[in-house]
Amino acid sequence: MNLPANIMVKEVGPRDGLQNESSIISTEDKIKWINLLSQTGLRYIEISSFVHPKWIPQLNDAVEVANGINRDPGITYAALVPNKRGLERALSADIDEVSIFMSASESHNQKNINKSIRATYPVLREVVDEAKQENKTVRGYVSTVFGCPYEGEIKIEQVIRVCDALFSMGIDELSLGDTIGVANPLQVKKVLEELAQRFPTEKLAMHFHNTRGMALANVLVSLQMGITIFDGSLGGLGGCPYAKGASGNLATDDLIHMMESIGIKTDVNERKLQQAALFIQDALGKPLSSHQIEINSNQM
Amino acid sequence: MNLPANIMVKEVGPRDGLQNESSIISTEDKIKWINLLSQTGLRYIEISSFVHPKWIPQLNDAVEVANGINRDPGITYAALVPNKRGLERALSADIDEVSIFMSASESHNQKNINKSIRATYPVLREVVDEAKQENKTVRGYVSTVFGCPYEGEIKIEQVIRVCDALFSMGIDELSLGDTIGVANPLQVKKVLEELAQRFPTEKLAMHFHNTRGMALANVLVSLQMGITIFDGSLGGLGGCPYAKGASGNLATDDLIHMMESIGIKTDVNERKLQQAALFIQDALGKPLSSHQIEINSNQM
Repeated sequence: MNLPANIMVKEVGPRDGLQNESSIISTEDKIKWINLLSQTGLRYIEISSFVHPKWIPQLNDAVEVANGINRDPGITYAALVPNKRGLERALSADIDEVSIFMSASESHNQKNINKSIRATYPVLREVVDEAKQENKTVRGYVSTVFGCPYEGEIKIEQVIRVCDALFSMGIDELSLGDTIGVANPLQVKKVLEELAQRFPTEKLAMHFHNTRGMALANVLVSLQMGITIFDGSLGGLGGCPYAKGASGNLATDDLIHMMESIGIKTDVNERKLQQAALFIQDALGKPLSSHQIEINSNQM
Repeated sequence: MNLPANIMVKEVGPRDGLQNESSIISTEDKIKWINLLSQTGLRYIEISSFVHPKWIPQLNDAVEVANGINRDPGITYAALVPNKRGLERALSADIDEVSIFMSASESHNQKNINKSIRATYPVLREVVDEAKQENKTVRGYVSTVFGCPYEGEIKIEQVIRVCDALFSMGIDELSLGDTIGVANPLQVKKVLEELAQRFPTEKLAMHFHNTRGMALANVLVSLQMGITIFDGSLGGLGGCPYAKGASGNLATDDLIHMMESIGIKTDVNERKLQQAALFIQDALGKPLSSHQIEINSNQM
């Protein structure tokens, strides 16, 4: 099947999951949760976002969370940063890696960042330059790679243009987001064939949503295309911002279960991962959507 | 990607879905639902089971359902038959195709059929012989092909033995069941590589459960192995009999959505399929679990 021996799973639940949850989690619970995640074997945790608190009230305690957690030296603690001001807050909180973000589609970028794609580039370049001066690694996120809620499918040339711009800034890794969960396995193969001609596959990560149930099928194709970095949100935390109640982020626990079952090592302890999932489920006070949680909660 | 141009989707919801639902659906609603299914483009519907009513009270109206539905001559209306007595009821109701069933694992067969595997063979052979005399086609189901709730993983030699016995009886098609939803893509590939050496792939169907979220990834591998027949239960109807509240049968609508999105024709109208799904969801009075229904019910 031509599968890699191991992959890196990047946990984005504390940022991408929580930012889509309406019930506010206390800073204390976030810290406890991230400390539990640090004990699972995960080596990368995106702990919060330094966007202006008015945009994402749920994550207005990014500094307190960053300062409150126990740091395992083997784990990269990353956070989202929208601009220079956000970067300064992130640096003051000693974040290991910063993530910048934009969309492949003009209208989603405009709605999400309130700027055109062209006007976004210099803002991000400034962040990358300054982060690099501070010896931080930088991750780029591109949203709506496989489809946009306003524009539908995005031309591959447009995706390449945006990826190219971000790599030219000097980012260390690029996460390709299926923001609305429309990607299908054939499309993933086609897009990755194009991108692999231009960018090193070891610097590409896949960020799938399971909105239509195809996330793990898309992961399988990505593995066969040489991708070894995948984003997940534990328990499927976050849901889908475009269809309330529908599945959103690919659940880290479902991803890891499939990887381990097909012999791909993740170094993550599934039992400890479930304990961390149950902790945040209790804190949220509503059932999370991952299959692993469904099974463990309902075993007869 | 080496995908087929079209596939056949077999709707098993009225039998396999309903038999795992606790709230009783009226005969009238079953008939209305199957009539709606007949208008979607599906060409195969398993409408009920002729097991003794005391085992599955939900399906004790199999004769009434079979006699009450409108028959489209382009559609095969099938039903499950456990033995000669069941077959006689099925024949009296003019079922197009009968399905026989057993397990690959001894203990699941014992629990489910109340007989050893060896003692099951003559019962099934009698059904196949008599059905063939009546010019009916026969489908075989093998459960627990990829794992058993009591025995764990099943040796491939054991799976082959059971498949071989069923094909030797003269069945027309064999559906390989991942009864507890544990199959993973690598295992599916390995099992199909073995079976494809012995049996014609065009006579093999895959019956996946989405308990661990891997069903569509398993479908993808099966397609690449030459399989073109897949079972589904509309809306994910049925749940998982081994973990209350967890996903069970692969949802027909999720299956068809992925197929159409990767360019594989199913001849099924997705809009009409959703109408049929919403009908049975209303009749059940609880939300079904398919991603398509989640999205359609919650679009913002």
